[in-house]
Amino acid sequence: MTSIEAIPATTRAAVTREFSMVADVTDYPLKQPSDLAPGECILKLECTGVCHTDLHFMNGEWRIFPRLPSVGGHEGVGRVVAIGAHSKGGVVKLGDRVGTKYVIESCLQCEMCRRGFEQNCADRVISGYHVDGTFAQYMVAYLDHLIPIPDELPSVEAAPILCAGVTVYNILKQLTDTPPGSWVVVHGAGGGLGHLGVQYAKAFGYRVLAIDSGADKRDLCISVGADKFLDFKDSTDLIADIKASTDPLGAHAALITTHAGAAYVQAGFYVRAHGTVMCLGAAQEVSGLPMALIIDQGIKYIASQTGGRQAVYEALALAAQGKVRCHVVERPLEEINSVLEDMYKGRLAGRAVITF
Amino acid sequence: MTSIEAIPATTRAAVTREFSMVADVTDYPLKQPSDLAPGECILKLECTGVCHTDLHFMNGEWRIFPRLPSVGGHEGVGRVVAIGAHSKGGVVKLGDRVGTKYVIESCLQCEMCRRGFEQNCADRVISGYHVDGTFAQYMVAYLDHLIPIPDELPSVEAAPILCAGVTVYNILKQLTDTPPGSWVVVHGAGGGLGHLGVQYAKAFGYRVLAIDSGADKRDLCISVGADKFLDFKDSTDLIADIKASTDPLGAHAALITTHAGAAYVQAGFYVRAHGTVMCLGAAQEVSGLPMALIIDQGIKYIASQTGGRQAVYEALALAAQGKVRCHVVERPLEEINSVLEDMYKGRLAGRAVITF
Amino acid sequence: MTSIEAIPATTRAAVTREFSMVADVTDYPLKQPSDLAPGECILKLECTGVCHTDLHFMNGEWRIFPRLPSVGGHEGVGRVVAIGAHSKGGVVKLGDRVGTKYVIESCLQCEMCRRGFEQNCADRVISGYHVDGTFAQYMVAYLDHLIPIPDELPSVEAAPILCAGVTVYNILKQLTDTPPGSWVVVHGAGGGLGHLGVQYAKAFGYRVLAIDSGADKRDLCISVGADKFLDFKDSTDLIADIKASTDPLGAHAALITTHAGAAYVQAGFYVRAHGTVMCLGAAQEVSGLPMALIIDQGIKYIASQTGGRQAVYEALALAAQGKVRCHVVERPLEEINSVLEDMYKGRLAGRAVITF
Amino acid sequence: MTSIEAIPATTRAAVTREFSMVADVTDYPLKQPSDLAPGECILKLECTGVCHTDLHFMNGEWRIFPRLPSVGGHEGVGRVVAIGAHSKGGVVKLGDRVGTKYVIESCLQCEMCRRGFEQNCADRVISGYHVDGTFAQYMVAYLDHLIPIPDELPSVEAAPILCAGVTVYNILKQLTDTPPGSWVVVHGAGGGLGHLGVQYAKAFGYRVLAIDSGADKRDLCISVGADKFLDFKDSTDLIADIKASTDPLGAHAALITTHAGAAYVQAGFYVRAHGTVMCLGAAQEVSGLPMALIIDQGIKYIASQTGGRQAVYEALALAAQGKVRCHVVERPLEEINSVLEDMYKGRLAGRAVITF
Repeated sequence: MTSIEAIPATTRAAVTREFSMVADVTDYPLKQPSDLAPGECILKLECTGVCHTDLHFMNGEWRIFPRLPSVGGHEGVGRVVAIGAHSKGGVVKLGDRVGTKYVIESCLQCEMCRRGFEQNCADRVISGYHVDGTFAQYMVAYLDHLIPIPDELPSVEAAPILCAGVTVYNILKQLTDTPPGSWVVVHGAGGGLGHLGVQYAKAFGYRVLAIDSGADKRDLCISVGADKFLDFKDSTDLIADIKASTDPLGAHAALITTHAGAAYVQAGFYVRAHGTVMCLGAAQEVSGLPMALIIDQGIKYIASQTGGRQAVYEALALAAQGKVRCHVVERPLEEINSVLEDMYKGRLAGRAVITF
Repeated sequence: MTSIEAIPATTRAAVTREFSMVADVTDYPLKQPSDLAPGECILKLECTGVCHTDLHFMNGEWRIFPRLPSVGGHEGVGRVVAIGAHSKGGVVKLGDRVGTKYVIESCLQCEMCRRGFEQNCADRVISGYHVDGTFAQYMVAYLDHLIPIPDELPSVEAAPILCAGVTVYNILKQLTDTPPGSWVVVHGAGGGLGHLGVQYAKAFGYRVLAIDSGADKRDLCISVGADKFLDFKDSTDLIADIKASTDPLGAHAALITTHAGAAYVQAGFYVRAHGTVMCLGAAQEVSGLPMALIIDQGIKYIASQTGGRQAVYEALALAAQGKVRCHVVERPLEEINSVLEDMYKGRLAGRAVITF
Repeated sequence: MTSIEAIPATTRAAVTREFSMVADVTDYPLKQPSDLAPGECILKLECTGVCHTDLHFMNGEWRIFPRLPSVGGHEGVGRVVAIGAHSKGGVVKLGDRVGTKYVIESCLQCEMCRRGFEQNCADRVISGYHVDGTFAQYMVAYLDHLIPIPDELPSVEAAPILCAGVTVYNILKQLTDTPPGSWVVVHGAGGGLGHLGVQYAKAFGYRVLAIDSGADKRDLCISVGADKFLDFKDSTDLIADIKASTDPLGAHAALITTHAGAAYVQAGFYVRAHGTVMCLGAAQEVSGLPMALIIDQGIKYIASQTGGRQAVYEALALAAQGKVRCHVVERPLEEINSVLEDMYKGRLAGRAVITF
Repeated sequence: MTSIEAIPATTRAAVTREFSMVADVTDYPLKQPSDLAPGECILKLECTGVCHTDLHFMNGEWRIFPRLPSVGGHEGVGRVVAIGAHSKGGVVKLGDRVGTKYVIESCLQCEMCRRGFEQNCADRVISGYHVDGTFAQYMVAYLDHLIPIPDELPSVEAAPILCAGVTVYNILKQLTDTPPGSWVVVHGAGGGLGHLGVQYAKAFGYRVLAIDSGADKRDLCISVGADKFLDFKDSTDLIADIKASTDPLGAHAALITTHAGAAYVQAGFYVRAHGTVMCLGAAQEVSGLPMALIIDQGIKYIASQTGGRQAVYEALALAAQGKVRCHVVERPLEEINSVLEDMYKGRLAGRAVITF
């Protein structure tokens, strides 16, 4: 193994000791360089985004539970400070500034990995779930899934691109039969995914109708480039209003970032024939989908979660070119519990990024 | 106008006089060549398929109702015997053997027509609904939507390709990221759409798991080339059985030709990550779609009805090459009412084709 | 037939009487409304672009020769003032402001038309070649190929989009596996096609390296949005310089708008593996193509001329949204001969548009 | 490290000691299991294909030269008998029957690897060039690039699929806008690549016109499924004859497997508008490409060498399903020099496979 600085025996970390929204910010054991397996490395983080998935995991709200104690987080940016002996060479070297992400490791050999869908590898390792994540100043990561951060991009702006950004980028990238200038409706446009969705949709050359509610959301959507905004609470006939705001034939595509099942149903009515509904917002189940209409109109529903490594590179490149900028609220690790509470209560405008 | 034979003043036809399943087989007025508008022509039919849509229309079962009296039918094959004056030249000439189809005419100028989706033209004219259709020996058709029938293909075998055949062909054609050798599950494989779906899927090089019930359906599916058959009534865990019959990762794609909403839900579970569900069977609504899973797995639902003119040419070409053969039951026009009753009661194995 | 104004017996026109660059601006017979065939109409033009193809035709420089006398031109914008009797309805009505283009008519029934490639219809009618074109205040056009001009777009800016604009738009639209943020090298970027290519490439979200020579071309390229400019006369190693200006792996794509065969060869060296060379500039033949390298690198050469009707709508829509603006020099019809001479001698910066 | 049998200190191998077509069949040192790096393994081969590339390398005919002494070969099938310590788990386990191929290893982290184009990795390791290859009973290979061989497929039939088979499969897979039933012209159809090209094209549902010369080639092409055969020596107007054998519009696509540059030029004339020329046969340079015609017709030239790992899995799966079968001549390692000579002199019908 090789390292470029002395590696401490413990790291400052936000440790989940029981399923709740309160983490224990404390010193936590750190794997030492000599114990790293080939392909493993140690990152010294500068910052990490906080994602709603972290909340769900820490709270034990899902059917799958992290180990206890454990460290959450999966949007980390930092430097490689040690590399395990016998590691295979590759794009990342000791000292590089890199990002680590939700799928922190995968086999790179199975069908999903071979096709660039590492997020669907049967052996995927999820950061903050299978292994300790980014809510710690030092962490163990995997060389072959690290993503170099472009020089132009500050670390705090890069962090949310590693998860929220790539999620919207990756599904927009699949919209290959929809030319620039087409209307994309972003449903939930004022949220974390949504406001990035507006910007990435603009980066693809689309016109964007942002759907959300309230003056703050409206201002955010317009400020990040939405061509139009529609407050769904002001609408008595959302479908008619969307068509009136876009085109009598209907919008060309919809990007659903809300968890509301109704949004999926509505999209079947306001998307034009041969248009596309992009499904991101994880409604557990969707009912009432107007299938006869969808068939008559030849509409596609395509779905996606996160994205493979190549999509992360591309999403970061667009951010580095200034096309996309996440609204970030920086907070130190010691305040992570108030951040989590603010997020839980919906009081946090923008994406929280913890700095070390 | 020009014509190649004397055009009678009336034609033998099955006339719907009130909404029921009983047509009146009688002499019916025929537009005369001198009255044809530019672009119109008269066909002398050799045969016509009978589609379930005809049943629904004649019975007044849908929210849209044909005029009364009217003549149904939309899978006709015959010869062009007269052409309206001032018609624009094109691929079809007087005397040619041609097919006429569900969308008998469209504007050819709107976005949908320009993109080859004539079936979604706002001004589409539906045969047997907006205008009189193919249940008559002579009929008025539109030159720019007629499809020449390849010489190798008997008229009675061509007729069902014009609607059922193109429907399955057209959606399979959209499966461009699924290479030959992949597993396609055909749900409802023993039906009219389904048994053509099995054959077209084979023509694309796929392996086919046919799903239906009963020994007759099994025999039909295997005889037309299905690699495997699964009787859903024999299965206590359809999803597990489908995976066991195809691949542990799941099938690559599903072709849903049944009207059962459950088939759409099941497909979300047995199709592999980044696979595709092709939606043809017009369940009015679908509920219980496992959206969180669909997103996690990156599954696409694509939908389609019939197909544009180019798809009809291509579907016919494959039939002419012997890759696809519809199971046809020939009956004379005078027996159309018993055909309709047999279809309604599910007693008719294969596709009924009325001959003149 | 119907008309909205009195149609004169003759129209002011630039008439080619012999193959030379001197047209005879004179009164020229005009087909009268009562003589229009179904589908034909009369346009009263506001303006028309002048394309190099017009020069070649008028000069008799190609293997195909227009009739004599004849009227050239194929980028006209005006209003429909009369429509032939028995015309089929469609998107364009009497009084509409529309564009007419190079392929002024096609059959809309053959394989090429059905697939949206009307420009390759075997029966295509070329404006200014098979029939009289746009260098006249009034002209006969074909309803089913007219393109409505968006309200936001002045006629003089719309005209060049009908030919030069759609040409670059249409090939960029085929670049579906190249995400936004990728580097596109525009070769011949300061020319008529090239400066539109820069803008359309930006509208697709690409980064653009413009290649041309001279300070004027540099200024034009930068002013229309090129990220970088490279003067090929200043370069002793163009391939190395292009890689240095874009990415060590090479550019993602090249858009060749020059007629120089060498540009096609060079692109094989500076485009990265699995990149795409877009071929527009009609070098008669290309020699020295490094095929072994192209195969090793998996590079694609795709080619295209003009575009179908849908591409014209889409190209105009982007211009109407302000994404693309052609540099236009307006001149009255009476000065067309000096315009032609300026173009021939390369003295005309931007696209000439004749106004009536 | 782990192993399942005693690993000998030396292996029987065909060693290139100087650039010539004569290998020295002898005992050759073998890396021992304890010396394997993580990710490396030892294969005990059952057989290996012999490719023309091997001839070129051994003869020193190319600008790049293998080390001396060295062992050539890159189409090996055998079992994993030892795995280096600290290797990452994956799809291949000790004892599995696997294939090893031309690109025996790549970084799996760079853009090309992330996009599934491992064959274009800047750090690719070529078997028989950078490292010793398959002309030896035992060899060192790399776990993450090994491909499991389907049970249904004999080893000797699998070997040529690993290079020749995947090459034709991979480029046909890119023909996504060409539906089944279309005409594909295979140029050089009676050769090693060509006769597999005929079969893979049939597996995609295409109609195949095979072009080659002589009765033997004709018989081979027809026996493997070509719909038609054209002897180019019997043709005085190849382009007209190809159109007459396929379609007046021209063929939909061409698959060029010969090294003759003229084949690339001819394809520009006989492929229909918007058709595709697939470039495999490594003519060093191609001259006289009719670019103006190619642009007018919107023809694409796409190129490709070998294929990524996923393509190899898919190509093998089609062979295992019985869709493709390579004509194989088996010979023992001791006779490799006569095999090489036969290949060099064009006396070997089918693909030579060396057995151990």
